[in-house]
Amino acid sequence: MESAPAIQKLLDELERMPGIGPKSAQRIAYWMLNSDRGTVLRLADAIVEVKNTVHFCSRCFNYAEGEVCEICASSRRNAAILCVVSEPRDIAAIERTAAFSGLYHVLGGVLSPMDGVGPDDLHIAELLQRLADDTVEEVVLATNPNVEGETTAAYLARLIKPLGLKVTRLASGLPVGGDLEFADEVTLGRAIESRRAL
Amino acid sequence: MESAPAIQKLLDELERMPGIGPKSAQRIAYWMLNSDRGTVLRLADAIVEVKNTVHFCSRCFNYAEGEVCEICASSRRNAAILCVVSEPRDIAAIERTAAFSGLYHVLGGVLSPMDGVGPDDLHIAELLQRLADDTVEEVVLATNPNVEGETTAAYLARLIKPLGLKVTRLASGLPVGGDLEFADEVTLGRAIESRRAL
Repeated sequence: MESAPAIQKLLDELERMPGIGPKSAQRIAYWMLNSDRGTVLRLADAIVEVKNTVHFCSRCFNYAEGEVCEICASSRRNAAILCVVSEPRDIAAIERTAAFSGLYHVLGGVLSPMDGVGPDDLHIAELLQRLADDTVEEVVLATNPNVEGETTAAYLARLIKPLGLKVTRLASGLPVGGDLEFADEVTLGRAIESRRAL
Repeated sequence: MESAPAIQKLLDELERMPGIGPKSAQRIAYWMLNSDRGTVLRLADAIVEVKNTVHFCSRCFNYAEGEVCEICASSRRNAAILCVVSEPRDIAAIERTAAFSGLYHVLGGVLSPMDGVGPDDLHIAELLQRLADDTVEEVVLATNPNVEGETTAAYLARLIKPLGLKVTRLASGLPVGGDLEFADEVTLGRAIESRRAL
């Protein structure tokens, strides 16, 4: 081996990261070798800190540093609308839109018989418990618009509708700024079905 | 902010890495949050270890963990051929070819009047010192085939040739597996000039 063992070890660990192949790992490793100590150790510290301080919110299962996450702890959120998502990263995506001011509930996955994921493997019992106290008026089912996400949304809708709550689903259609010509048939079909009156 | 502060800090630090934008940083951060503690802390340790143990080889200025790098320390390398490169990463590239068994010397850059890099900013004095003991018979100038690399190679050739050593340069030409049609004119022109008898 031509590399120093510490460099080889770093390359091996960097390549475990998603989207990082051997070339990117090498580029990052050389950046670390060339950068000043402070910059590089700050990154290592940030990694350790995240693993030490971040866990799941006891209420919504988002990532949190305290007992509950910052969204659950905020007094400015509308507790009457609850948005159900599959993963914490979906919360980050929705928050970036600034179009939603309600609370969230993270399922921790989607129903997937193929992968052996059933209702008991998701935070569905905890969701029903949150709906029991009459605070929530609308549940937005924001699982992904794919087979498993739709199945999960349909399953949840069947459970929640009998509670007398409004159940909604994110709209499917053409991406804004997109092009009819390049839309796939399913998306375009959905956009036609869900056309709005002007 | 919707993210926990520790996550936001991690995202900021990840985005400093070369080739990592906000989307990649987020993907990596979520991977770190979801992966088991051991995997993630091993990466943080590898980063710290590289900054603590890796420095420059006292002989060739490659990265090294000991006083000299593994290549300089090896008894299986041919000390009669010295390959001069700009950066340690060039050594890694040449080693991967397994086509060179000599030793290296890292300049630590290339001559660049525009960036204020002159001969005294590179490890040229140390190179000449290494050539003084008559061990080296050939110096391969392996700086990049661009303006600054060629200038640096020409400068070094003028210094080294009077010492009576053989001075060579890496061949320029068509990439193996490449296509005449897609070669740039300069490369194709160089390939024609340097054509070999068959």
